[in-house]
Amino acid sequence: MRISELSRRTGVPVPTVKFYLREGLLPAGRATAATQAQYDEGHEQRLRLVRALVEVAGLSLAAVRRVVAAVDDPPRTTHELLGAAHEALPPAVADDVDVTAATGVVAELGWRIDPRSAPLRQLAAAIAALEAVGMPAGVEVLARYGRALEPVATAEVAAVPTSSREDAVAFVVVGTALYEPVVLALRRLAQQDASARRFGVDCP
Amino acid sequence: MRISELSRRTGVPVPTVKFYLREGLLPAGRATAATQAQYDEGHEQRLRLVRALVEVAGLSLAAVRRVVAAVDDPPRTTHELLGAAHEALPPAVADDVDVTAATGVVAELGWRIDPRSAPLRQLAAAIAALEAVGMPAGVEVLARYGRALEPVATAEVAAVPTSSREDAVAFVVVGTALYEPVVLALRRLAQQDASARRFGVDCP
Repeated sequence: MRISELSRRTGVPVPTVKFYLREGLLPAGRATAATQAQYDEGHEQRLRLVRALVEVAGLSLAAVRRVVAAVDDPPRTTHELLGAAHEALPPAVADDVDVTAATGVVAELGWRIDPRSAPLRQLAAAIAALEAVGMPAGVEVLARYGRALEPVATAEVAAVPTSSREDAVAFVVVGTALYEPVVLALRRLAQQDASARRFGVDCP
Repeated sequence: MRISELSRRTGVPVPTVKFYLREGLLPAGRATAATQAQYDEGHEQRLRLVRALVEVAGLSLAAVRRVVAAVDDPPRTTHELLGAAHEALPPAVADDVDVTAATGVVAELGWRIDPRSAPLRQLAAAIAALEAVGMPAGVEVLARYGRALEPVATAEVAAVPTSSREDAVAFVVVGTALYEPVVLALRRLAQQDASARRFGVDCP
């Protein structure tokens, strides 16, 4: 198909498609003339992935490039592919953060975690922030959050499609990013309900 | 006490204390001379609250002003005070967002929620974002997240101190803000563990 048809099928404007081609996020089409190229369904699928990562998950171009490289890197297992998708998501945490306390929490939970993974460093940074202001950050307190999240994470991973590598990666990155505001809003609403039960609500 | 002593006790530099005084976040001391004033333990407690809100929870000065106003507003119940603390936290969502779907989720959960509360609008905005890209956003899917978060929210609210209004508000705002990165990192780690169980991990 021509670039105009690729744009029509995906809803991505032609200038944006050309930008993704220049940035290397979308592989070049098969040249049919000096100023024309043909694109196939592989391009269409890749373009849908890039758009979801940029527009929906809000990733930077550098992060999209890492995700696309992971999809193109053939020897990875599905588990490694999902790990690479996670790595691309913010917040970035320095490699040299001390993960001792965070490792203790996942050990208490009995989880299989890559010791170099980004979410482990994110947990380590969050624990350090709690400790800096004297908020409870012990293994038992934090493991309680982890145990509460186990059933939702299991259901989320069970829903990951295996139809294609692009589909799996898009689902993980977009799903991880878009359900975060749901989780945070529901935590506050659950606190509001718990506060009504503990302190009572005055009727007007 | 003099401003220097107030600064020493709280660890807030004198120029910052003067800034908070100018901004009205800290009430003026009792003037003892043209350029001197005396401060008491009420000032010390308020200063600790303002510092926690600004430096730890990362609130804007406008948000701190709203929190401080809620603490000073006498007829509120503890539940209303905690609600006002929640209102001050980002993300801000427009008042006119359609909360129908979000209200359906909290009804399914049986929670007592103020229909004008900020977290309900935050949930509504999160649901709209999911629907815009065709991700599952039905009542059953979202209620599953809510049920998972109930026990942690109950434990969090049980830990709210009742020693003073400042203590309660600081705990709610700082705790809500600082445990959010913990919740998000642990969700990703739980996904990583669930992915290892579903897809298997290659040993090197």
